[in-house]
Amino acid sequence: MGITVVGSVAFDSIETPAGKRERCLGGAATHFALAASYFTEVSVIAVVGEDFGAEEEAVFTKRGIDTRGIERATGKSFFWAGSYLDNLNEAKTHQTDLNVFASFEPKIPAAYAGTEFLFLANIDPVLQRRVREAMPNAKLVAGDTMNYWINDHRAALLETIKGLDVLVINDTETKSIAGNSNLVQAAQAVIELGPKTLIVKHGEYGATAFFSQRSFADHESSHPFRAPAMPLPEVVDPTGAGDSFAGGFFGYVASQPEMTPAVFRKAMFYGSVMGSFCVERFGTERAQNLTREKIDERFEVFRKLTHL
Amino acid sequence: MGITVVGSVAFDSIETPAGKRERCLGGAATHFALAASYFTEVSVIAVVGEDFGAEEEAVFTKRGIDTRGIERATGKSFFWAGSYLDNLNEAKTHQTDLNVFASFEPKIPAAYAGTEFLFLANIDPVLQRRVREAMPNAKLVAGDTMNYWINDHRAALLETIKGLDVLVINDTETKSIAGNSNLVQAAQAVIELGPKTLIVKHGEYGATAFFSQRSFADHESSHPFRAPAMPLPEVVDPTGAGDSFAGGFFGYVASQPEMTPAVFRKAMFYGSVMGSFCVERFGTERAQNLTREKIDERFEVFRKLTHL
Repeated sequence: MGITVVGSVAFDSIETPAGKRERCLGGAATHFALAASYFTEVSVIAVVGEDFGAEEEAVFTKRGIDTRGIERATGKSFFWAGSYLDNLNEAKTHQTDLNVFASFEPKIPAAYAGTEFLFLANIDPVLQRRVREAMPNAKLVAGDTMNYWINDHRAALLETIKGLDVLVINDTETKSIAGNSNLVQAAQAVIELGPKTLIVKHGEYGATAFFSQRSFADHESSHPFRAPAMPLPEVVDPTGAGDSFAGGFFGYVASQPEMTPAVFRKAMFYGSVMGSFCVERFGTERAQNLTREKIDERFEVFRKLTHL
Repeated sequence: MGITVVGSVAFDSIETPAGKRERCLGGAATHFALAASYFTEVSVIAVVGEDFGAEEEAVFTKRGIDTRGIERATGKSFFWAGSYLDNLNEAKTHQTDLNVFASFEPKIPAAYAGTEFLFLANIDPVLQRRVREAMPNAKLVAGDTMNYWINDHRAALLETIKGLDVLVINDTETKSIAGNSNLVQAAQAVIELGPKTLIVKHGEYGATAFFSQRSFADHESSHPFRAPAMPLPEVVDPTGAGDSFAGGFFGYVASQPEMTPAVFRKAMFYGSVMGSFCVERFGTERAQNLTREKIDERFEVFRKLTHL
């Protein structure tokens, strides 16, 4: 039971039309883990520097997240600075300091070995594969990536996604992996590269799941499924929305006794729910202070938004 | 009963990655009328030139559309040439010849006077208002517009949309009317300008209906409703998709005995269904050759795509 996630734990300096935050806790593994923690047990594999203190650690431990896999290294944590002043859908990066992340060698605590659900957040595909191989008990492996790996480390990336059960990426990444500008054709091409299921995130328009014959062991294949995003009167900070989507999606799947098409559809909604909460505040502020009741209330809002 | 639509009937020369067509029948009123004709009786008010012959007329009459309001003027019909080579979501206009449309003075046949459903497709808002005032029996009036009228004829446009029951426009137009880049805030601001209901079309991502307290006479107001677009493996020609959406939406509403939130939600799906058929062939090719059975089959595909 439970999920292990490997990925970045970072500090982000963010500017949006709603304001500015300096060095707030961020990183893909952080956003993912907080979102997933409302559904199941979560363990993190990451590396941080000496600037990661008791306050940051408490953000994880208050949510019951296992931090034994967060390695402390000499130096500073991964730092990113960016703004969304012109366009809330696309960050403008001002600074990226990899710091201790540059020489990240994931170390997996013995206690994590039994993990059945593994999420490989956006890091070097060589490291993603190494973690996957070190966790042979994982029965469902999902992952994310980004254009840098697609464009400049294509061979390594293709080798990694070959072994994924679920790939969670956005429209541009899907089209870029496939070299095809039609989303449905691109999705089909990506699925032929290995992932059993492809989830394409559309930002403010939601996400679509594309299934294959191999998606469900004991069930027939499923038609595509579209989850909307929430129409929100204010987006404070979009940073981490995609990782929160992945956390809500995978957290719900991991909490269920069976992996069925119906479970994956509900998981798509929970992904959108967690993404919608994430953007309501800066950084992880909202994800730190939710309850399962609030999450399920919003799930019902999504149902009304979409069901006849 | 039945719908009257006023708008353009035109010839379009279109180039897309799927090929080229010269002077195929197009125009907002044409696409709207064909889509709506699968649900209810439709009458058209438009002006065409001497190049509009028996073949073009038959496209309407074969679908039972009343063409008595299509005026024949001396000269050529509205002509548009455009391409979608770089981006299927945005047309590049190469040529626009208004021709007889430049001096369009809508003439309403006496037989149309009893129409209960009126659709004001994208034309000069002064003409839209004139038609609306000439048809006092219309119990539901919907309309479309475009950025040209929003930016350069704002006062006339605001006067027209004040009297609309339903405004059907896209994201950019909504944000542009409101001067607000957040869709939910912009939608609220547009509704405060008069329309009881606002439908925002998101292109390949579907459409969202925003309701107000005034949307339904005998029913409580409704939460927003999102209809997806169909994930299609090939988009042959996006021209007319938005008008086909409006035709499917309004055609279904006009076919129902009551205007309820549930009827509007199903109408959103029928709008998306008709938009999805439109883009599968050039011009009106697909909309000419459908059956209600095929339409309802695709409606069920939309249900599966969205319902848990």
